[in-house]
Amino acid sequence: MTRYLEDIEIGETREYGAYTITESDLVAFAKRYDPQPFHVDRDAARETPPGHLIASGWQTACIAMRLAVLEGYLRDVAIVTGVGIDALRWTESVYPGDTLTVREEMLDKRPSESDPSRGVLRIEITVVTADDREVLTMEWIDLVKRRPGAADE
Amino acid sequence: MTRYLEDIEIGETREYGAYTITESDLVAFAKRYDPQPFHVDRDAARETPPGHLIASGWQTACIAMRLAVLEGYLRDVAIVTGVGIDALRWTESVYPGDTLTVREEMLDKRPSESDPSRGVLRIEITVVTADDREVLTMEWIDLVKRRPGAADE
Repeated sequence: MTRYLEDIEIGETREYGAYTITESDLVAFAKRYDPQPFHVDRDAARETPPGHLIASGWQTACIAMRLAVLEGYLRDVAIVTGVGIDALRWTESVYPGDTLTVREEMLDKRPSESDPSRGVLRIEITVVTADDREVLTMEWIDLVKRRPGAADE
Repeated sequence: MTRYLEDIEIGETREYGAYTITESDLVAFAKRYDPQPFHVDRDAARETPPGHLIASGWQTACIAMRLAVLEGYLRDVAIVTGVGIDALRWTESVYPGDTLTVREEMLDKRPSESDPSRGVLRIEITVVTADDREVLTMEWIDLVKRRPGAADE
C-alpha cells in the first residue's frame, strides 16, 4: 500500500529493526568513511578519550536509514526525495555487539507552497540499543506525494 | 600541530579532497545502507523519479567525513567528541563519476558552560562537485579542547 501525505497521522509511531553491529562491520565502515583511531583499531582506541572501540556516528545514522527503508516509513510512504536532516545528536556511544532498533514518529506535515501535488513531511528518528540506551536522535525531512487530486478537494 | 578552541578563527575556510565516486562504490554503499531502487540498480533507476542512478545522500555525507578526517579540521583540531549535525540539506544529486570536494568554514565557537576545559565549535561543511554543483550543506557541531589553562586567563 502506498501512503500519501493525507494518509499520515501526526503522532503515529512505530518501532522496528534489530541490526547487530559487529566489530569487523564497525571497523570496515570506519576505515572507509571515518578513519579515526577510536573507530578503526581496538588497541589504539584504548589510548583515546572514549577508551574503547566505538562505532562512527555516521554508521549509526546509516543503519537507521537501512532499517527505515526495509522496515519503516520509507517502505510505504510515497517519497519524492529526501530533503535533509535537522537536529541530529549523537547522545551515547555504540559499541561492537550492540543491537540497534529505530523508533519513528511522524512530527509534522504540510502541503508544498510551490507544488500542490507534494508536501513536506518531518519524521523524528531515534536509535536505541537493546538495553534501551538512546544513541542517536534526528529529524528527517522528506518531500512526499499528495494523494492524486487532494489539492483540489 | 594540535589546534585548540583558542587557535580557531571564526570565518576561516579551507577546501580539500577529490573523492571520485564510482558506480560500484555507490551501489555497494546503497545495498548496505540505503537500498532504494534509484541507488542500487542502473536499470531500475530509469523507472524512478530521478530517472538515473544517484548516490545515497548518506554516502555523500560520509565522504565529507572521510575527507575532513584525512585532510580537514578533524586532522588538526583537538576534538573531544562529535555532538551532532544541524541543517543538513541535500541540494543536488550526486552521479557515478562525480568528484567531491569539501569546503569548510568555521562558523561559531564558545566555551562550554559545564566544563571550562572544553568548548563547542560549529563548522559549515559544503560538498561540491568538480563542475561546482553544491550537492550538500550542513553544520557540524563538535566538542573541542581549550588550550590548557585558557579558562584561567
